[in-house]
Amino acid sequence: MNDRKTMPEPEWIVRGATGAPLVGRFPLGIDVERLRAETSGLLEKHPLIFESTRQLALQIRPGSTDPWYESCYQEKDIAPEQEYDTLNPELEGTYLAEVLAGFPFTVFRARLLGVDPRHCYSVHRDATPRVHVAIETTEHAVFVFVDENNVFRMPADGDAYFVDTRHTHTALNGARDLRLHLVVGAAA
Amino acid sequence: MNDRKTMPEPEWIVRGATGAPLVGRFPLGIDVERLRAETSGLLEKHPLIFESTRQLALQIRPGSTDPWYESCYQEKDIAPEQEYDTLNPELEGTYLAEVLAGFPFTVFRARLLGVDPRHCYSVHRDATPRVHVAIETTEHAVFVFVDENNVFRMPADGDAYFVDTRHTHTALNGARDLRLHLVVGAAA
Repeated sequence: MNDRKTMPEPEWIVRGATGAPLVGRFPLGIDVERLRAETSGLLEKHPLIFESTRQLALQIRPGSTDPWYESCYQEKDIAPEQEYDTLNPELEGTYLAEVLAGFPFTVFRARLLGVDPRHCYSVHRDATPRVHVAIETTEHAVFVFVDENNVFRMPADGDAYFVDTRHTHTALNGARDLRLHLVVGAAA
Repeated sequence: MNDRKTMPEPEWIVRGATGAPLVGRFPLGIDVERLRAETSGLLEKHPLIFESTRQLALQIRPGSTDPWYESCYQEKDIAPEQEYDTLNPELEGTYLAEVLAGFPFTVFRARLLGVDPRHCYSVHRDATPRVHVAIETTEHAVFVFVDENNVFRMPADGDAYFVDTRHTHTALNGARDLRLHLVVGAAA
C-alpha cells in the first residue's frame, strides 16, 4: 500500500520500573456501546475460536480461504502480520469499519481478542506493539508487565491504547465474564 | 491449642505503590528437591482437585470425613480456617510434616495449591494473609497486586514467603507446566 500512515506518538500514560514507556493513549472517542452491540451480533455469526484466549480476525490477506481465522495465532508461520491489511468484505459499511478507518495510522491484523474468565496468556513478548480498544472489560482484567513490574487496567472509554507488548507481559481476566478487546497491529 | 505460636515479623522484601508491605521472607532452608519428590508421590495417591486452581489439604479438622479436601475452597461455609490445625495422620513422619513443624509460627489450613498453565485466580482479597513455599514454579508464574501495582515472582529457594493477600491480588501461571506451592494460613 502506498498510502500507509505510520503511527504518531501517543500520549504516554504508563512507564515501567526502568522508565520505559509501556502504555500510551490515542483519544479516539469511539462509541463503545455501539461497538459492543455490533461485535455481539458479529460474534453470533462468526464466533471467537481457540480455547481460553479466543480470537476472530477482522482484516485479511486478499484471497485468503480462511479469512475470519487465518491471522489468528498461526499467522507467523504463514505471512508477515503486516500483510493482513484488508478489511474483511463482510464488514464493509459497519461501525467496525468506521472505527478501523478512524485510527490515526494504517492498522493491520485487526482482531477481536477474548480472554475467558480466570485465564491468562502465556508470559511472552510480541514482535510488534499492539493498540487496543476495550469493548467488554472489568476492573479485574489487567495487563501485567512482568519485568517492568507494572499492572495496567485498560478502561472501556472509547480511547485506543498503545501497549508496548515487546516487553515481557501477559494479560489476565480475573473476573467472571469474557474480556473482549479490539486489537490492531502497530508498526512502532 | 494452648501453645499456638503467633507469626513473627518477616523480613520485608516487597512494598506496593502505597508503601504497604506486600511480601516478606522467612529463611527456612527447606530442601526443595526433597519436598518436590515427596509431594509428587503424595499427589499420585491424593490428586489435586478442582479445575484450573487445584488444591489438596494437608491439615484437617479432627474428625473430618473428607480430610484431603474439606479445607479447600468451601471451608468458609463450614468452619473458621484456623480450625484446620491438625496434620492429616497419613502425613506423620514425612518431610512435609517436618516442614510444617519448622515454620516459626503455628500454621493452619496448610494446603498444596496448583495453578494450571495459562490460568489465574479471580482477582480477590483474602481474610487472612498466606505464607507460601514454592515447590514447582517458573519465571512465568507471578503474583499480581492489582491495586498496589506490583508483580512478584516467588523463587523456589527453600524460603517461605509471607504474602499479604488481604490486598487485592491474583496469581497467574503463564508457563506450560503446573505451578505448585505449599501454602499455610497465617494470623497476622
